Amino acid sequence: MERVAVIGAAMTQFGQREEWILELLAEAGLACLEDAGVEPGEVEHLYVSNMASGEFEGQTGIMNGLAHDLGAIPAYTQRVDQTSSSGGAGIYAAWQSVASGASEMTLLVGGEKMTHKTTAEATDVIASITHPNEYNVGVTLPSFAGLTARHYLERFDAPRESLGKVAVKNHKNGVDNPKAQFQKEVDLETVLESPIVADPLRLYDFCPITDGSAALLFCPESVAAEYTDEYAVVTGVDGATDTHVVHERDDPTVMGGVVESGKGAYEMSGRGPEDIDVAELHDMFTILEFLQMEGLGFTEQGEAWKLIEEGYTEKDGELPVNTSGGLKSKGHPLGASGVAQAVEIYEQLVGEAGPRQIDDAEVGLCCNVGGFGNCVITTIMEAGQ
Amino acid sequence: MERVAVIGAAMTQFGQREEWILELLAEAGLACLEDAGVEPGEVEHLYVSNMASGEFEGQTGIMNGLAHDLGAIPAYTQRVDQTSSSGGAGIYAAWQSVASGASEMTLLVGGEKMTHKTTAEATDVIASITHPNEYNVGVTLPSFAGLTARHYLERFDAPRESLGKVAVKNHKNGVDNPKAQFQKEVDLETVLESPIVADPLRLYDFCPITDGSAALLFCPESVAAEYTDEYAVVTGVDGATDTHVVHERDDPTVMGGVVESGKGAYEMSGRGPEDIDVAELHDMFTILEFLQMEGLGFTEQGEAWKLIEEGYTEKDGELPVNTSGGLKSKGHPLGASGVAQAVEIYEQLVGEAGPRQIDDAEVGLCCNVGGFGNCVITTIMEAGQ
Repeated sequence: MERVAVIGAAMTQFGQREEWILELLAEAGLACLEDAGVEPGEVEHLYVSNMASGEFEGQTGIMNGLAHDLGAIPAYTQRVDQTSSSGGAGIYAAWQSVASGASEMTLLVGGEKMTHKTTAEATDVIASITHPNEYNVGVTLPSFAGLTARHYLERFDAPRESLGKVAVKNHKNGVDNPKAQFQKEVDLETVLESPIVADPLRLYDFCPITDGSAALLFCPESVAAEYTDEYAVVTGVDGATDTHVVHERDDPTVMGGVVESGKGAYEMSGRGPEDIDVAELHDMFTILEFLQMEGLGFTEQGEAWKLIEEGYTEKDGELPVNTSGGLKSKGHPLGASGVAQAVEIYEQLVGEAGPRQIDDAEVGLCCNVGGFGNCVITTIMEAGQ
Repeated sequence: MERVAVIGAAMTQFGQREEWILELLAEAGLACLEDAGVEPGEVEHLYVSNMASGEFEGQTGIMNGLAHDLGAIPAYTQRVDQTSSSGGAGIYAAWQSVASGASEMTLLVGGEKMTHKTTAEATDVIASITHPNEYNVGVTLPSFAGLTARHYLERFDAPRESLGKVAVKNHKNGVDNPKAQFQKEVDLETVLESPIVADPLRLYDFCPITDGSAALLFCPESVAAEYTDEYAVVTGVDGATDTHVVHERDDPTVMGGVVESGKGAYEMSGRGPEDIDVAELHDMFTILEFLQMEGLGFTEQGEAWKLIEEGYTEKDGELPVNTSGGLKSKGHPLGASGVAQAVEIYEQLVGEAGPRQIDDAEVGLCCNVGGFGNCVITTIMEAGQ
């Protein structure tokens, strides 16, 4: 079967935006088409990764609206929802659309408009991802993160500071990303003394609420050559679920969806953790970066905290993680995040990451986590030229 | 490329149900697996066609919940939204998942829980499918239907009674469907004298608000043989958009999405309208059955009303349309409807349609319309044994 290439990528400024969802989606979608030199009329399939435009803005059918606004009619379109991993699910859907032969030019646009809602309103919608038996008694996603972080620190004798250092690293990386919501460094003291949200996690252990959009353009590798010499190839992609009721899991520090989707992506690509040059992990909460490092085999269970202490995941370390700034500093517009992770990896692979560029990056990985690991999508991309 | 088979199908009772969305989805999903003799643990991909569980019930992440409730973890899962054509979009997604090699056993479950909402509340959510410039001035989907029906009747000199006869036919068919919401006949006088909703259309020109779920199980044709001798094959499937702003269309009686998706499905299957033995069309409004008959090439533009007058689309006619009772009498739980259309075609093709059975049905078609033709998916299925 022919490989699936990515020939264009773009993202909007992330942060607090005045535009509504359809404008944000169109901005990223048009920029992506322009990046690739492809006309809107050439798009055959259009996938829109978005969790909750209906709940957040009272507007549904945004995929049809986007096809219209881009000038892509009669392209087929569909909205892809996999909660906070809708972007990763969109990559999988786009890959399938090309790999199955259904489309030779598939545009994926992920986006969410959230900042017009209060934190309480947004949290209500986000909490509804999980099981009512848990959120109805107040266990929202930040609570799961707090409980898991406490367990991790105590069980593996990890210092609280190690979690703080994830935030410090990702904020430092975000300074070099002009599209990031927060382009400023924070020091460890600021993180450790910020207000408690879900003990032991504090404000700076959490990603912000964000508006934004990101886009990728997919086609068969043979078609890619008609447009560009520099492209990436999706060599591995897989998704997997874990229990919807989080407290039913055997080990709270193991995210089954991370492990299983990672295995699938490695097997498909013929790669292993040792081959990955750069990774974007879903640091919605600092603790999640550790769980993904371990679940994806970059280190053993209970050991990820040592890597951050050693600088292993810094931009100049062995495995740079979240060179984009991650969800932590770049922001987390739900449906956009998984797409934006792959935009960063694409830019690293084609050498367009500017001040964030990792030398000789040839194999990259993104991991996009839905809910509290309820469904996870892992994607491996490689330089295609 | 190997063909994609359908080896199981099921639907719940449609109507006013007490269960919430996850129970309805699980009921259809488990019945479908049982129909095929496949264990939940064998499912590799699970797609959930649903438009608005968040808006209707305040619950998101239902695809993760369903994977959990079915016992299908770690199967990959994703929610497919294409508004009222989410079910058809689910068929396309499931087809792609198998055709691309990503999954060898894909379960599609479509469903919606709506009757706990008032008609006004449901209409608000459904209206948000379309463009705000239209719905904000009161042009909801029923209004589009009324305007289009008036134009059609006047332009093509069609009698008002012809639309009424669509309702009479589909209610008559629904009597033989034990899963239909309304299993009762209506006479033409009742239809023509029912309360006006959007002149000239009256109450009986519209489908009801419904709860329900439907499911299909897909695998490569070579795998189908391990489970059953009787299965169907998806030989053609395509989707296409038309303008999101309905009043921008050149001809209000031509649904571009119907025409384009039909062309794609015919081309892929090597079939034409003359090959179709039985069809399920999206009769959310009676006028839509005419527009699909014409757009899919079963007759010329402006001629469909003559076919209903001739009995051409009756169960014993040349081309039986909506043997299931259609959305009109079976009901229209948004995300379920496109799946339920294909459940009917599957049962016709494998000879399990009971009193609704059409003799020697070997090629069937379903057309699932999103919004007011904003996106349409056409599927052609054939007997596979």
